[in-house]
Amino acid sequence: MKKDLNFGGWSCPLPLSNYPTIVLGHGSGGKMMADLIQHLFAPQFNNEMLAQMGDSTILKIPAGENNELKLAFTTDTFVVSPLIFPGSDIGELAVNGTVNDLAMSGAQPTYLSAGFILEEGLPMGLLGQLAGSVARACQEARVQLVAGDTKVVEKGHGDGLYITTSGIGLIPPGVNIAPNQARPGDAVIVSGTIGDHGIAIMSVREGLEFETVIESDSAPLNGLVEQMLAVAPDIHCLRDATRGGLAAVLNELAKASDVGIVFDERMVPVRPEVQAACEMLGFDPFYVANEGKLVAVVPEKDTEIILAAMHSHPYGLNAAQIGKVVETHPGLVLARTGIGGSRVVDLPAGELLPRIC
Amino acid sequence: MKKDLNFGGWSCPLPLSNYPTIVLGHGSGGKMMADLIQHLFAPQFNNEMLAQMGDSTILKIPAGENNELKLAFTTDTFVVSPLIFPGSDIGELAVNGTVNDLAMSGAQPTYLSAGFILEEGLPMGLLGQLAGSVARACQEARVQLVAGDTKVVEKGHGDGLYITTSGIGLIPPGVNIAPNQARPGDAVIVSGTIGDHGIAIMSVREGLEFETVIESDSAPLNGLVEQMLAVAPDIHCLRDATRGGLAAVLNELAKASDVGIVFDERMVPVRPEVQAACEMLGFDPFYVANEGKLVAVVPEKDTEIILAAMHSHPYGLNAAQIGKVVETHPGLVLARTGIGGSRVVDLPAGELLPRIC
Repeated sequence: MKKDLNFGGWSCPLPLSNYPTIVLGHGSGGKMMADLIQHLFAPQFNNEMLAQMGDSTILKIPAGENNELKLAFTTDTFVVSPLIFPGSDIGELAVNGTVNDLAMSGAQPTYLSAGFILEEGLPMGLLGQLAGSVARACQEARVQLVAGDTKVVEKGHGDGLYITTSGIGLIPPGVNIAPNQARPGDAVIVSGTIGDHGIAIMSVREGLEFETVIESDSAPLNGLVEQMLAVAPDIHCLRDATRGGLAAVLNELAKASDVGIVFDERMVPVRPEVQAACEMLGFDPFYVANEGKLVAVVPEKDTEIILAAMHSHPYGLNAAQIGKVVETHPGLVLARTGIGGSRVVDLPAGELLPRIC
Repeated sequence: MKKDLNFGGWSCPLPLSNYPTIVLGHGSGGKMMADLIQHLFAPQFNNEMLAQMGDSTILKIPAGENNELKLAFTTDTFVVSPLIFPGSDIGELAVNGTVNDLAMSGAQPTYLSAGFILEEGLPMGLLGQLAGSVARACQEARVQLVAGDTKVVEKGHGDGLYITTSGIGLIPPGVNIAPNQARPGDAVIVSGTIGDHGIAIMSVREGLEFETVIESDSAPLNGLVEQMLAVAPDIHCLRDATRGGLAAVLNELAKASDVGIVFDERMVPVRPEVQAACEMLGFDPFYVANEGKLVAVVPEKDTEIILAAMHSHPYGLNAAQIGKVVETHPGLVLARTGIGGSRVVDLPAGELLPRIC
């Protein structure tokens, strides 16, 4: 009988049944969240556009004869704790997160909406300060907040403030960036040091003190992407390395494009203080969340010109090629280690740092 | 000195300072929420589009030469408690609420996004059931859910499930519906019985039992609006009567259009069981929330044809003209009472029914 079994395209509904209730790991950006989406949400919403699995969804809207507009549309919910942390706060994060998801489709982010869930007892001054952060972040990213909603829940049914932002961006003609566009031979680039955001949150939450304060890297990346596209419009994939970190992004791209990815651990920029904190806490920096870093997969011939463009932008100063796309081991990510070996870098399983964004 | 004081356009920052922290009333859809938006949010986001104050915001997007697309964009956050209630649940409500906000601009709702905040411990079966409601509601309203996000918060920092939906709709050429378009002489129409949703929620929350179960009226209104526009494209205002009920909508329209509104209390359709529940609970049905009812302001000459179109649609069977727009007392709403007098119907002040949507 066994030889009749065909595991191609097989998807196992079991993992979910191990969890009769939601646990924190389901919000991790790792395997548990992927299971939840694949087994619980996706079967209900079986449509082509959700299946794009990009950071934002590309909508093609008819506009007059033989013309169509390409819009990017995305939504992000922010439950980060604490509300204010070194280098940023939930207001700025909520704008930059959605701006970046739009930018990862090559779109120029244009319009934003924000839904606020306020907990009874939230100090009015704090709300004013965070609304100010939202406004300043919109200004820096050159987007307009055009719609909003506010709800209040009783004390003990929220955590001060949750924000959900959604955004619309315009995709310039000729741009075709998607997670399934990586091709063997392509270069894999990161835009700067990784792990800063996660460690910044963790250090305040755990009361850790370092010689230097580690700050979140929260930043809008649309300007950087614009500069990259100006020198090389044929960028294949872009993804910001948020929940699940660099490791999750590389795995998602490898799977979506059905290619292998190999990278050199030593080429990945990590601040020494972040590296030290990771060692102390037992974290692998490749899995730690970022809020202002992107991974780009680009044609090999364009690597130098793109890196030069990135280095000339404030959010790309430390950009570096870390690896390449290969034909072998499709769907798998391998890291060359410092001592000459190599290891599989898998999706994170459960929850590394809950409520990181 | 007194004669030098000019109160035109004067806005008083005092109301907010009476509340050093957020209280439930700030989520009411009444005066306190209007204060919060006017004094805390609006000054940070001073842009034309937010100032439209419609249920959705109208975006004009350039599309080729001498051409522009008119899109409606909106966001709504849902924190209704309990998650499931007679006639509907948070999943259906979250879709219909956003669909209706788009329809109130005359737009054909097209794309939706949903952000879920899950509380640790939420039963997986319940989440599956509510995700199914979202999917079915999308199908009925003919919209596609194309983007989503999921976050998990610790037990005690949420309330099972909060959902934020955002939506995009296309506005057909020639449609120009906005809260500031009401003109003296226009007819004021409601699409059916009011107060059902609020009383349905209240009755389960308070364990009230009536002879008949009062069910929420949650419904997508885009089909009804489409039918109305087909017979009379020159509709002036549309608004769904959610938080704050009919009274809040009429006040908002009177203020935005700088006109008076007069309506006859006896013409407003209210189910006898809702009327009875309101009397028992001490509520005025005009202030109770609806989730499937709209108020339309239309040219007097089109009243009959629009009412006929509404009566032929399942969600407009009980549509009725309740009053008219007048030149006198701009900004004020007057109700003619059953005993021949008249009274001012003001915006609700604080919170009538917390977490009604």
